[in-house]
Amino acid sequence: MDATPKAVRHLIDAFNRLPGIGPKTASRLTYYLLRVGQEEAATLANALNELHQGTVFCSVCCNISEQDPCVICSDPTRERDTICVVEEPLDVLAIENTGRYKGLYHVLHGHISPMDRIGPDELRVRELTARLADHAVREVIVATNPTLEGDATAIYLGRLIEPLEVMVTRIALGLPRGGDLEYADRVTLAEALAGRRRI
Amino acid sequence: MDATPKAVRHLIDAFNRLPGIGPKTASRLTYYLLRVGQEEAATLANALNELHQGTVFCSVCCNISEQDPCVICSDPTRERDTICVVEEPLDVLAIENTGRYKGLYHVLHGHISPMDRIGPDELRVRELTARLADHAVREVIVATNPTLEGDATAIYLGRLIEPLEVMVTRIALGLPRGGDLEYADRVTLAEALAGRRRI
Repeated sequence: MDATPKAVRHLIDAFNRLPGIGPKTASRLTYYLLRVGQEEAATLANALNELHQGTVFCSVCCNISEQDPCVICSDPTRERDTICVVEEPLDVLAIENTGRYKGLYHVLHGHISPMDRIGPDELRVRELTARLADHAVREVIVATNPTLEGDATAIYLGRLIEPLEVMVTRIALGLPRGGDLEYADRVTLAEALAGRRRI
Repeated sequence: MDATPKAVRHLIDAFNRLPGIGPKTASRLTYYLLRVGQEEAATLANALNELHQGTVFCSVCCNISEQDPCVICSDPTRERDTICVVEEPLDVLAIENTGRYKGLYHVLHGHISPMDRIGPDELRVRELTARLADHAVREVIVATNPTLEGDATAIYLGRLIEPLEVMVTRIALGLPRGGDLEYADRVTLAEALAGRRRI
């Protein structure tokens, strides 16, 4: 007999719809919130309700932002002749965390994937080429993921942008720092070899 | 520069407070909800807000329920002479899913753990002994987890209940069905040997 209260089932279902959260984790989270009390659940509910009200898309770089243009696009100290193209907002954060990049960004919100019927028109590609129109940008660094789809997107952008007389580069593929050559997969090792540089 | 909007940070923090959800998963969930739109986030928020309003504790078995007494305790077809004692509401669900148990339950809401200062008084133990007072119960099956704390709780309950002239049993420990003897850990194998039965 399923004696689970409706309210419990609803929350389990809602958690279960999130990516990477299966029915077991969804149950555990729900019963955790039941145990710790109403306040914890209310905190999460409020944060969820305020998520979309508190965010806009930056009309320049298409990143998710509190203001338009976003703090990076409106920062006068950033180098305005370089645009780093990434797939997702989280990628901007990852690159910012390196502390090594001072240029601007462009967020595609996805990658080209014919299987999922996602072509350039479904991404923020038109917004990117519009930014190159005034010839102020010298280099576009394509930092899409090192996956089939990320590579396809990079190749597409390369062909699209090169005629505009802007240099297009791709972030390096190779062994991750702290990795072990012995345990590297064949493809990564081949790419590390192919991308070798003089020391 | 951390360009993350406040609303995004708040939701990441709220997800991150849930057990088993680290900062990376919290970010992924948040940006997923940003991408799929407001409706998905609102569904989860509503389910969270309704969680505590839609649930009560059953005054008999202490399980989380929609009504008091819960559907199992108020079901006239359940065998009322057997009580299965479990640690958490999810354990009731697991046993119900076997389809092999027709008795009643009692949910302790935890286990004895001196390290965490959880003794019998922090659990629903008094409620359990109260149910045994009218001598209608013949057997108490202790189905706490096969852990140190679950075992300690089982031993404590055994000593507490046996003087009340109620049989106390513990669910069997042994090899899991579909498991492989070769890969079983020593303790499980030792318990499977000790618990051997004639075929």
